[in-house]
Amino acid sequence: MLAAVLHGAHDLRIEAREDRMLLPGEVRVRVRAGGICGSDLSYFNKGSVGDFKIREPLTLGHEVAGDVVAVAAGDGFAAPAIGTRVAINPSRPCLHCGFCRAGRENLCRRMRFLGSAALMPHIQGAFSETVVVRADQCVPVPADMPYRLAACAEPLAVALHGVRRAGRVLGANVLVAGAGPIGLLCLAAALHAGAGSVTVTDLFDGPLAIARRMGASQAVNVRDDAGGLEHLAGAAGGFDVALEATGSTASIVAMPALMRPGGRIVQLGMLPPGATPLPVNLLMAREIDLVGSFRFHEEFGIAVAALANGRIDVSPILSATFPLAEANAAFALASDRAQGAIKVHLEIG
Amino acid sequence: MLAAVLHGAHDLRIEAREDRMLLPGEVRVRVRAGGICGSDLSYFNKGSVGDFKIREPLTLGHEVAGDVVAVAAGDGFAAPAIGTRVAINPSRPCLHCGFCRAGRENLCRRMRFLGSAALMPHIQGAFSETVVVRADQCVPVPADMPYRLAACAEPLAVALHGVRRAGRVLGANVLVAGAGPIGLLCLAAALHAGAGSVTVTDLFDGPLAIARRMGASQAVNVRDDAGGLEHLAGAAGGFDVALEATGSTASIVAMPALMRPGGRIVQLGMLPPGATPLPVNLLMAREIDLVGSFRFHEEFGIAVAALANGRIDVSPILSATFPLAEANAAFALASDRAQGAIKVHLEIG
Amino acid sequence: MLAAVLHGAHDLRIEAREDRMLLPGEVRVRVRAGGICGSDLSYFNKGSVGDFKIREPLTLGHEVAGDVVAVAAGDGFAAPAIGTRVAINPSRPCLHCGFCRAGRENLCRRMRFLGSAALMPHIQGAFSETVVVRADQCVPVPADMPYRLAACAEPLAVALHGVRRAGRVLGANVLVAGAGPIGLLCLAAALHAGAGSVTVTDLFDGPLAIARRMGASQAVNVRDDAGGLEHLAGAAGGFDVALEATGSTASIVAMPALMRPGGRIVQLGMLPPGATPLPVNLLMAREIDLVGSFRFHEEFGIAVAALANGRIDVSPILSATFPLAEANAAFALASDRAQGAIKVHLEIG
Amino acid sequence: MLAAVLHGAHDLRIEAREDRMLLPGEVRVRVRAGGICGSDLSYFNKGSVGDFKIREPLTLGHEVAGDVVAVAAGDGFAAPAIGTRVAINPSRPCLHCGFCRAGRENLCRRMRFLGSAALMPHIQGAFSETVVVRADQCVPVPADMPYRLAACAEPLAVALHGVRRAGRVLGANVLVAGAGPIGLLCLAAALHAGAGSVTVTDLFDGPLAIARRMGASQAVNVRDDAGGLEHLAGAAGGFDVALEATGSTASIVAMPALMRPGGRIVQLGMLPPGATPLPVNLLMAREIDLVGSFRFHEEFGIAVAALANGRIDVSPILSATFPLAEANAAFALASDRAQGAIKVHLEIG
Repeated sequence: MLAAVLHGAHDLRIEAREDRMLLPGEVRVRVRAGGICGSDLSYFNKGSVGDFKIREPLTLGHEVAGDVVAVAAGDGFAAPAIGTRVAINPSRPCLHCGFCRAGRENLCRRMRFLGSAALMPHIQGAFSETVVVRADQCVPVPADMPYRLAACAEPLAVALHGVRRAGRVLGANVLVAGAGPIGLLCLAAALHAGAGSVTVTDLFDGPLAIARRMGASQAVNVRDDAGGLEHLAGAAGGFDVALEATGSTASIVAMPALMRPGGRIVQLGMLPPGATPLPVNLLMAREIDLVGSFRFHEEFGIAVAALANGRIDVSPILSATFPLAEANAAFALASDRAQGAIKVHLEIG
Repeated sequence: MLAAVLHGAHDLRIEAREDRMLLPGEVRVRVRAGGICGSDLSYFNKGSVGDFKIREPLTLGHEVAGDVVAVAAGDGFAAPAIGTRVAINPSRPCLHCGFCRAGRENLCRRMRFLGSAALMPHIQGAFSETVVVRADQCVPVPADMPYRLAACAEPLAVALHGVRRAGRVLGANVLVAGAGPIGLLCLAAALHAGAGSVTVTDLFDGPLAIARRMGASQAVNVRDDAGGLEHLAGAAGGFDVALEATGSTASIVAMPALMRPGGRIVQLGMLPPGATPLPVNLLMAREIDLVGSFRFHEEFGIAVAALANGRIDVSPILSATFPLAEANAAFALASDRAQGAIKVHLEIG
Repeated sequence: MLAAVLHGAHDLRIEAREDRMLLPGEVRVRVRAGGICGSDLSYFNKGSVGDFKIREPLTLGHEVAGDVVAVAAGDGFAAPAIGTRVAINPSRPCLHCGFCRAGRENLCRRMRFLGSAALMPHIQGAFSETVVVRADQCVPVPADMPYRLAACAEPLAVALHGVRRAGRVLGANVLVAGAGPIGLLCLAAALHAGAGSVTVTDLFDGPLAIARRMGASQAVNVRDDAGGLEHLAGAAGGFDVALEATGSTASIVAMPALMRPGGRIVQLGMLPPGATPLPVNLLMAREIDLVGSFRFHEEFGIAVAALANGRIDVSPILSATFPLAEANAAFALASDRAQGAIKVHLEIG
Repeated sequence: MLAAVLHGAHDLRIEAREDRMLLPGEVRVRVRAGGICGSDLSYFNKGSVGDFKIREPLTLGHEVAGDVVAVAAGDGFAAPAIGTRVAINPSRPCLHCGFCRAGRENLCRRMRFLGSAALMPHIQGAFSETVVVRADQCVPVPADMPYRLAACAEPLAVALHGVRRAGRVLGANVLVAGAGPIGLLCLAAALHAGAGSVTVTDLFDGPLAIARRMGASQAVNVRDDAGGLEHLAGAAGGFDVALEATGSTASIVAMPALMRPGGRIVQLGMLPPGATPLPVNLLMAREIDLVGSFRFHEEFGIAVAALANGRIDVSPILSATFPLAEANAAFALASDRAQGAIKVHLEIG
C-alpha cells in the first residue's frame, strides 16, 4: 500500500509500506479521505510536535474515514461488517488503567494514537491506502456520507470535548480564540450546545469571515483591533467561557482579564514550549478556572451523529482536496494561513 | 471605642474611634477576640495587599467574634437577640447582582468586606471594641464557645471553600502547599471532607510538626528536600488535588508536574504582583484544572457548625493571644514565621 | 384598569381593578400580551392548582410582556427606562433566604409569583392593563420584538430550566413526554442544548405534527402505539434523558423502564394529587435519577436572549390571539387539546 | 475445597466443590474471612433476591478477603504477588461497554458479580476455601489487617458510593434511614465526607445505640416516635441529603416530606417487588432529587485505604464470627435483627 511517510521536516514521501497482520479484534480499513491536522503540519514543518520528535519514518494522519475490508474476530468489541463505511477514531486506549476505568481514556498513559511520535517505535498514522485498527475504533457512518465529512468527526470531537470541558455553555457568552479548524469547530460546537453568543478572534480576515458565516456574533481581528475585544468583553461583564484554540502565548495571557468572575477558560491549543506568563492572581481573586482539554473520548460518537443528522454543518471549513500523490502540495496549502485554507483533505484510494 | 488603626506601614495605633449609627437591619457587636490574618499582616508590613493601598486610616481585622449589644429592626434578615454570642462573617454582599443571585456572592463586585482598602472610603475593620454589621453577618455560636475559637470560623471558611472548589476530595490524594494558618486549615478541611491522604509542604519545620499532629500523611520541608516531594508524587501517580496556600511563585510553578492527569489545583494564596510563569502545556495535555478560590460564602456557616460540634479541631493552630493594647507585639509575632507562630489573636474588651 | 379576574371555576370576568401604588424599587408596566399557561387553565377549569384553591378573586396571568410606564427609584436593582419594552419575569424572590443566596431562588419559600393563589392574600396576576413589579422582574427585549413572542420567555424559561436540571444533554438521546406548550418548548430547548435526538410523545396527532416540524427525531402517539415507544427505547439502549411534561401518571410510571441505566428523568408536569406508583427498584438498580424541575431562575434571561437572536424559534407553538375582552373564548380554546391549540395569547391594551 | 452452597431457601450445605482452572489474567485466592450480606440473607431465607431466583446450587458470598495463592499471567492488569493479602472486589465488569468506558462499570450489563443468581449459569460466590477472580479484583491490604476488616471493604464501598451519589455532603444535614450494616456504614461514610450532622433511624434500639456510638447526631426509633423525626426535620428546614438503607416502603414514601427543597434522596435499599407509592409532586415542586445507588466502582479502593489508615472505623458493626462449618448458625444470627447482630462473618480456612 502507498502511504504519506514523513522522514524528517519537509521530507514527506509517498511510498510503499507493508500493512501489518490483523490481531484478534482488529479491523482493516480501506482509507478514502484524510484531513490534515495542526499536529501533522507541525511534524511536517518542524519534525516535531511539542516534545515529540520524529525519530523514525512516520506515516502521518489521524483524521480519516474509509471502508472496512477485513475483520479478525475478537471477544471484546463487536466488529463492523465488511463493507461498512466508517469514521476512524484514532484513539486506542488500554482499557485497564484508572483513567480508562474512570471515563477519561483520553488521559490513558498507554494510549496508542494514530500517527504519533510520542512512543518509540512510533504509532504509524492513516494517510495510507489501508490501516489496521481495533474494532472499537471504527464508528459506522451513513453509507452516503462523503468520506471527507466523516473524516471531520475527529477534529469536531476535539471541539466538542473542549465545549464539554467548559461546563455550562447553555446561554453563556463565549469567546473562541482562533479561527483555524479547531477554533471554527469550537464555534460550531458552542452554538450546538446553546451558547448565548460566540465571539471569535483571529489575525486574518478570511477565517473571520467564515466564522461570521458559521454564526459568530462577533468576529474580531485582534491584529488590528485588540481594543475592540476588550471593549466587547467589558460591555458584557466579561465572557463566561473562553476556548483557546490558537496556541499563542499572547492569546492565553490576555484571556483572564476578558473573563467574567467565575468564568472558565479551556486551553485546547498547544503553546510554544516553556512557561507561559499568566496573571494567576486574577484567576484567584475572580475564581476563574483554567482547564486543559486534550483530545476526546465519548465525543467522537457524538460528532459522528451530529454530522450525520446535519445539526452541525462543517462544510464552511472544507477548503481543498488533493490526491495522496500530491500530499506535499496539500501540506503546503494547509501550512499557509494567509492563503485562507482552513481544513485541507487528502483523497486516498 | 478603642480600635487598632493602621495609618501606614508599621504605623498601627490603638486609638479612640467613633462607632457609627445603626441603619435598619444592622447590629452592633461587642468584639471579644480577633485573629490576625495574612492580609492584616500585609497591610501592616507593606501598607498594601496586592493592588490595594492604604489611603486613609484603616481599622484592621475581619476574623472576629463577640456579643450582640444592639439591633436595629430591618425587613430582610432575622436579627439575633441581644446578648447572643456570634462569629462575624466579614462579607457584606449586595444581594442584587448576578453573582449574589447565582450562589457566588464571594464574587460580588459591590462586596463590602470588613477591614479592606479595596474601596474608598475604606471599609473599616473589626479590631475595635464594637463593630456594626448587617444582621446576616452575625452567626450564633454556642454560648460557651471560646471567642477566639469562634473567630477561627472565618479562616476555616476560606479553607472549606478551597476544598469545595477542589471538587471530589473523598478518597483523593491531596497536596497542601504551605503550613501557615490557611494551609493547616486546608489540611483539616481536606481530611474533614474525606481525603485519602494529605501531604503538606513548608519551608519551616515547626509548622510541619503541627501538620503532622493534625493528621498529615506526609509533611515535607521543601527547602531541604524538594526531591522528596517529587518522589512522593511520582510514587502515587501524582496528586489528585492540590491546594496552594503559600502565595509563592515557586510553589505554584512546580505544581502541575506533581499532579495526576485530570487533577485539580486550587490557588488560595495571593502571589507576588505580575505574571507567573506556568507550564500551561502540561495543564492542557494532562487536563489539569487550575482554579482560583477567593474567600467563601455558605462555608462560613459550615465552619461554625464544625467548630461547634468539634468535628474540626483547630486548637493546634492557636499560637498566642495579646490584649488589644499590645496589638503591635501581636503583629510582630504573627509576622515572623521562623518563630513558629501560626494564628495570633487579639483579646478585645 | 381592566383585568381578567377569576372569581371561581369557570367564572372569569373582565372587570375594572385599581392598580396599586409603586413602592421604592418598583415599576409599572403597561401589559400588551399575555400567554395562557396550564396553571391559568387549571384555576379556570377547577378553581385550583394542585393544593392551591382560589379563596378570593384572582387576576390570572404570568406570561406577559409590555412597556414600562412608571418607575419608583430604589437602591437595589437598576430600573429600566420609561418606554422600554420588557418581558416580565413573574418571580419575585425574597433575596435573603438560603435558597436565594445559593442560586436557587425558584425554591424561595417567600416567593411572590404573579397570578398565584399559593399565598393569602393571593398574588394578583398580570392579565390586566397594567401591573406593578420589582425592577429586576423587567427584562428588556428588542424594541421590535412582538409582545406575544416576548411573553413566551416565561414558558421557555421553564423548559430551559428543565433541560438544565437534566444535566448533560449534549449528544444525549432525549425523550420528551407531552407535546403541549411546555413539552414542545422542552423539545426546542433540548435541541438548543445539543441533544443528539429528541423523541416526543403525545395522545394527539396535531401537536405531534408540530413536534416533527420543530425538529423531533421521532413523534409517537402513545394512545395508538405505546409499543412503538418501547421499541424505540430498546433499540437505542434506553433514553439518556427524559423530560416529563404531561403530568400524567401513566407517563411517569412507564418512564424508568424506557431509560438507559444512569439516565435522568426530569419531572416538570404536575401530577394528579396523591401518590404515584413508581418502580423505585428500577431507579435503584439502574442508578436512574428522578429529579424535579420547578419554574426557573437565570433561565429567564437566557430565554429572552435566545428569542431575541432567533436561535430558538417558538413560532410553531403560537396558536391564536384574542383581545382581553374575549378572555373566556381564549380560555375555552386553550382548554381543548383536541382542537389542537398549543399556546393561546391575550392581546391587552 | 469446601464451600457454603445454597440449594434452595434454608438449604445451605457445606460441601466439597471443585475450583476451576485459571484463565490468563486470573488469580486464585485462599479465602480467609467473609461477611454475610443482606443479599446472601435474602437468598438464604427466600431463595431469591428481588427477581433473581436460585435455579441451581449457588455458593454464596461476595464480601471476602484472603491471600493470593496462584496467578496466571495475562496482558491486562498487573497481577498481585503470591502471598499478598487482598480484599476481593466482587465486581468483574466487561471493560468494553459504554458504561465501563464512562466510569460507571457498576452499571455494566455484562457484569459478573460473585455469588449472584442474576445470570444462568449462576456466578458462584466466595464462601469457599478458594476462589478464582480476575487480577484487578484483588486489592492489596496491609499484611497485618485482620481479614474480616478487609472483608468490610465491600459493604463500605457500597456506602461510599451512596455518599458520592448524594453529591455535596460537606456540611450537609444528612438522614440515614436504617441502622443495619449498610445504614451504619452510610453513617460512617457521610461523617467521613464531612456531613454537618447525621440522623439515623431504625425500628430497633440496639442498632441505634451503635449509631450513636459511631457519631450519629440523633438516633430515632421510628417505630416508637415517627413524629420525632418529622420534628427534627422541621426544625432544621429539612434534610439536605437522605440515604435510604432499609428497603422499606414506609421509609422511602415518608422521605420527600422530610427533605429541604433542593435536597437529594439516595435509594440504596432494595424495596419489596412492585411499585412504590411516591409523592412525586413534592419531588417536583421542591426540586428534590431521587437517585439510585447500585454497588460501587472506584469506591472499593477508597474503602480499602480508609480502613487501612484507620480514618473509618467499622469495628462497632462487627458482631460475631463463625467457622465455615457453622454457616447455618451464622446465617440464623444475621437474619434476626431483634437479636442485635449487625455484621456476621465466616472464618474460612
